[in-house]
Amino acid sequence: MQVLIVFCHPEPQSFNGALRELAVSTLEDLGHQVEVSDLYAESFDPVEHPAHYLQRIEPDRFLPLTEQRQAFQAGTLPSDVQRELQRIERADLVILQFPLWWHGLPAMLKGWFDRVMVYGGTYSGSMRYDRGYFSGKRVMASLTAGSPAPAFTRHGRGGDMATLLWPLHCSLYYLGMTVLPPHVIYGIQGSGVSYQDESEFRAHLEDEKAGWIRRLKRLGSDAPIPFSGWSDWDEDGVLNADHPLAWRP
Amino acid sequence: MQVLIVFCHPEPQSFNGALRELAVSTLEDLGHQVEVSDLYAESFDPVEHPAHYLQRIEPDRFLPLTEQRQAFQAGTLPSDVQRELQRIERADLVILQFPLWWHGLPAMLKGWFDRVMVYGGTYSGSMRYDRGYFSGKRVMASLTAGSPAPAFTRHGRGGDMATLLWPLHCSLYYLGMTVLPPHVIYGIQGSGVSYQDESEFRAHLEDEKAGWIRRLKRLGSDAPIPFSGWSDWDEDGVLNADHPLAWRP
Repeated sequence: MQVLIVFCHPEPQSFNGALRELAVSTLEDLGHQVEVSDLYAESFDPVEHPAHYLQRIEPDRFLPLTEQRQAFQAGTLPSDVQRELQRIERADLVILQFPLWWHGLPAMLKGWFDRVMVYGGTYSGSMRYDRGYFSGKRVMASLTAGSPAPAFTRHGRGGDMATLLWPLHCSLYYLGMTVLPPHVIYGIQGSGVSYQDESEFRAHLEDEKAGWIRRLKRLGSDAPIPFSGWSDWDEDGVLNADHPLAWRP
Repeated sequence: MQVLIVFCHPEPQSFNGALRELAVSTLEDLGHQVEVSDLYAESFDPVEHPAHYLQRIEPDRFLPLTEQRQAFQAGTLPSDVQRELQRIERADLVILQFPLWWHGLPAMLKGWFDRVMVYGGTYSGSMRYDRGYFSGKRVMASLTAGSPAPAFTRHGRGGDMATLLWPLHCSLYYLGMTVLPPHVIYGIQGSGVSYQDESEFRAHLEDEKAGWIRRLKRLGSDAPIPFSGWSDWDEDGVLNADHPLAWRP
């Protein structure tokens, strides 16, 4: 299996950095090939911007999707976007490794979607969801959150984690990917202030590293997150009223 | 009333740009003062990065929150972050104007949170939620989405809009702000491809502009989105089990 790890953290010595290294070594030991896209180290530009399109089809007004489609068709996408697309093309499994910042992806990783997932190339009106371009590829979010786990439960003040990750999972499914349940590690703070003492914090980190290795070893047997698909929807893209999961007031 | 519009779109001539202009003129006509933070025009850097901290407290390892707190206390925050904080300080109401990209904020606007909302300055363990720093300020998301409205309903394939905006609303409430219901305009595509013809699309845009003006005129009477607060939570930050809204299995 070919695995792509998209790593988004400004500090290689961070706990996210340690999780990345563990993923590389564990997956390689299992016989897989691993490639890492290190967004910060490669100074990826996350901002979708007219400056990325040197040969504009619409020079007077910047229409991002129009320029994306044109550049994809003409083979003139920016080199970093082409590189990221090639990496995804090569992969059977994509792991997104990042810290939860402000209830979502760091800007660097959000912009990886904004720029790399080009209209007309990775999706279109008819090529999305279970007819998506990246159909057959699996993907998993692996993230750290600062607050302890209870804050991210259904009634937690941090916001239910499944809901916080829903937009990301929607995007991944939109692209046709098979979305595995996320691997979330809670209570990871640079300062370790939530813990009684440093040794308690260190023990937590070691436990979580072991848990990550266990998760990586059983990735093959993980059941994906279920989504509805084209055959479930009416012409407006809404779940058919007679669908067993449709809610009725 | 002092209003700050945080505008995030790469093209001033876009429909988002038109909504921004309408907000400025409508609010000024109502007697309010309006300031615009135009993130693309000002080349805001959305990437939280060690290069922003010239005097590091921890030079060997970049701990974003530690450096943010230190820079806030020492008065050495980057000048663009200081400018954005001053703009928010001056405002009674903040309007975030953006297109929904990949089920969330464009990277540019996401990074505005990552960099401007500094730890130790705009929040801390005890200064958040209904004890938040920006308590008393109101905020509203005003956004456009490409697909028509049905796709973003509860059973729509685009993902329920309230759920997609939940992470953003969590962040705004975390900062202590009073969050008004969002203003969402659907079916806005650069190409207008969802419409029978150009005139139908133009009519839709004009209708939506009129709706935006009406919304702006009644902002004063909008009821905010309700959130639970410190008095509702146990020591783990979870809704008290006897709270009337607590779900029981």
